[in-house]
Amino acid sequence: MSLRSWLAIPRHSHFSLANIPFGIISTASEQTPRVAVAIGDHALDLEAFAAHDGFKALSTIQPHQAVFSQPSLNAFAALGRPVHSVVRKYIQSILSEDTPFPDVLKTNAALQKQALIPLNKVKTHLPFRIGDYTDFFAGMNHAFNAGCLFRDPANALQPNYKHVPVGYHGRASSIVVSGTPIRRPSGQILTNPAAEKKIPIFSPCKKLDLELELGAFICKPNNQGEPVPIGEAEESLFGVVLMNDWSARDIQAWEYVPLGPFNAKNFGTTISPWVVLADALEPFKTKGIDNDTEILPYLKEKNEKSVYDIQLQVDLKTQSGNSSTITKVSGKHLLWSFPQMIAHHTITGCPLQPGDLLGSGTISGTTPEEFGSLLEQTQNGKSTVSLNGKEERKFLEDGDEITITGVCGTDPDGLVGFGECTGRIEPPVTFNF
Amino acid sequence: MSLRSWLAIPRHSHFSLANIPFGIISTASEQTPRVAVAIGDHALDLEAFAAHDGFKALSTIQPHQAVFSQPSLNAFAALGRPVHSVVRKYIQSILSEDTPFPDVLKTNAALQKQALIPLNKVKTHLPFRIGDYTDFFAGMNHAFNAGCLFRDPANALQPNYKHVPVGYHGRASSIVVSGTPIRRPSGQILTNPAAEKKIPIFSPCKKLDLELELGAFICKPNNQGEPVPIGEAEESLFGVVLMNDWSARDIQAWEYVPLGPFNAKNFGTTISPWVVLADALEPFKTKGIDNDTEILPYLKEKNEKSVYDIQLQVDLKTQSGNSSTITKVSGKHLLWSFPQMIAHHTITGCPLQPGDLLGSGTISGTTPEEFGSLLEQTQNGKSTVSLNGKEERKFLEDGDEITITGVCGTDPDGLVGFGECTGRIEPPVTFNF
Repeated sequence: MSLRSWLAIPRHSHFSLANIPFGIISTASEQTPRVAVAIGDHALDLEAFAAHDGFKALSTIQPHQAVFSQPSLNAFAALGRPVHSVVRKYIQSILSEDTPFPDVLKTNAALQKQALIPLNKVKTHLPFRIGDYTDFFAGMNHAFNAGCLFRDPANALQPNYKHVPVGYHGRASSIVVSGTPIRRPSGQILTNPAAEKKIPIFSPCKKLDLELELGAFICKPNNQGEPVPIGEAEESLFGVVLMNDWSARDIQAWEYVPLGPFNAKNFGTTISPWVVLADALEPFKTKGIDNDTEILPYLKEKNEKSVYDIQLQVDLKTQSGNSSTITKVSGKHLLWSFPQMIAHHTITGCPLQPGDLLGSGTISGTTPEEFGSLLEQTQNGKSTVSLNGKEERKFLEDGDEITITGVCGTDPDGLVGFGECTGRIEPPVTFNF
Repeated sequence: MSLRSWLAIPRHSHFSLANIPFGIISTASEQTPRVAVAIGDHALDLEAFAAHDGFKALSTIQPHQAVFSQPSLNAFAALGRPVHSVVRKYIQSILSEDTPFPDVLKTNAALQKQALIPLNKVKTHLPFRIGDYTDFFAGMNHAFNAGCLFRDPANALQPNYKHVPVGYHGRASSIVVSGTPIRRPSGQILTNPAAEKKIPIFSPCKKLDLELELGAFICKPNNQGEPVPIGEAEESLFGVVLMNDWSARDIQAWEYVPLGPFNAKNFGTTISPWVVLADALEPFKTKGIDNDTEILPYLKEKNEKSVYDIQLQVDLKTQSGNSSTITKVSGKHLLWSFPQMIAHHTITGCPLQPGDLLGSGTISGTTPEEFGSLLEQTQNGKSTVSLNGKEERKFLEDGDEITITGVCGTDPDGLVGFGECTGRIEPPVTFNF
């Protein structure tokens, strides 16, 4: 099967035939959210596709076609990776130049009209009804950089760091899809941490930051009390999205001892709308950050290539329209892979459910241009980041828009990309106490 | 209206006519979970009650009766506190001795047979589909005791403690209803924390503990970006349950720096099945722990009585059948009330949803018999708790069963109680690495 399509797919499209990411869409004429895949500049509406016999050459999916009419990917994900794999390959074959089933879509102008919708006519929604969201801290360079800022290089990484995939439970209800505005949060801030008497003020966040992360969605549930062995953890992995875990650094600094980040993180987390299946990312697996510590058996993977070489980029566009790239880094800079996170998360018997989201933690490389947060780039506001020499930033200002992009591969006709994860900062609430 | 019922309600019942708690039940003959209230030794099945015109004298609820056929209280809760109040009062009037509507149930033997089910024939389920679960740390005596164990009395409470209702996001998927067994978790444990080289072992938890808490369910959503003012926070409060936030102290000690508790808490949290409405608890409001610190305006309550005087008790029953009360304490020992927690949680704009659960944090009084965890009672295993002089415990052993009970009031015919929150420890998973 060729990986060229009969459908015109622009060069450098993130959504080549090699990709086939899944998402939830609606349109002006049909406002009920349903399942689609992205292909080139189009969405293929799988509800319409299924309703008009698009799956006639794939008998195994026919009893399950109701999943494509759902307003989330939870039901499709719950069918399991073998089914995702078959459906993706079938859609690839339907769309390929030399498709064995041309009458399904290639020569079926009526169904093309109904099911192939230009992406610019489509509204994307949160891809999953997210049950629980867990954010890990596997970006070791970020952990080290943050540790240097708040402690010192010798003690930057805590003693547990290379043994435990450190993580914490996040706030599922505040996860939003790309494009949703983010309101600057307010809260308690300690303006003079060195003072003996520590009295916080109430203020809009003054150190609003982004965090460049990858998010992984779970497809396979495990029963409470039944850990997922590391060798089976990939079966739980539906796919990956880009994620911006917006962070209020000043609120965090005051609140986080001893139970961890809370209000500093729960005002918004943005994810990209198209979930790239684990299968599509398989060719881009690579080795992560080397762990020089002997880890416990429940975390040991057979394959040392277990993270993804995704070319990630962060752009900051100010209210004046000035846009500049502030970060370029590979997604491989992780000490722990998603399967290791799954094995650790469930070792206690914690139940994961289809639609649960795992964040990687902030991904940073080793040089400032590769740092995935302003905290690291400006050393917690001690320096500034230049925006094309016209403006500068310590942290985010109202009206700033952050856009994360990510793409795998180099063949301009065969990219596996994520599209965009974008969000713009709105001014804070005005309070009248 | 009399608060005596025509239905025989045993003296000292937790479910007097003054209570009317809501839950989700099923029975052997009708296994679809649906909404009920508890009254004396019975459940009143509200699906059956509604289906047979039980609400005929309450026209306002009639358009909404489908909520009683749901497998969770989410839809009923979302109707809002004024509706909960009206429904509770109506059920009280239907059940009262001098009911103005005797033909609804009092003299309607057929409906009594269909809708009044002995509690011992009823299976209770998780009352809500829980979206997000947040655990606070408002039990100041517990925070102080734990701080003394891990630091010293002078620095036991962190500088933020009296300013911020400290909390963290918990794991919603591992919350279970009373009666569900809890499997002892396994994980990483540092057996020799004083050693210079810190190498964890893999082991079943050796310091398995309970935490005596109250849980509050949310009924009113707030939009993302829109904080709930403290003066309106009570409108968000559906009702209260007993909660045991099982904790693996050894796993926690190693994992929790710097992002807080994770695997130490996500293997199970048990709640009682009957949710006592905020209205029913209103007469038992009292003053909490005095805060000697000036707090920020967004946390200031008008009414200084904002916590509940609930007589809480913890019983430990070993595999041999030996049962002893290990804790007796009032639920009032909290520095922050649920409305304060709601105001703090949403001050950033974090959206709460109907069915979200807020934990109070471990409730301890000032003497060892009032401590709400074994960590405090045994000073992290340095001493033991005697179980009737026959056995002793540092932490929980396999087969141990913990039962929390809670009740408000002293009139034996007018108690407002919670029933039981119970769970038994099962042996850990056997691993073959």
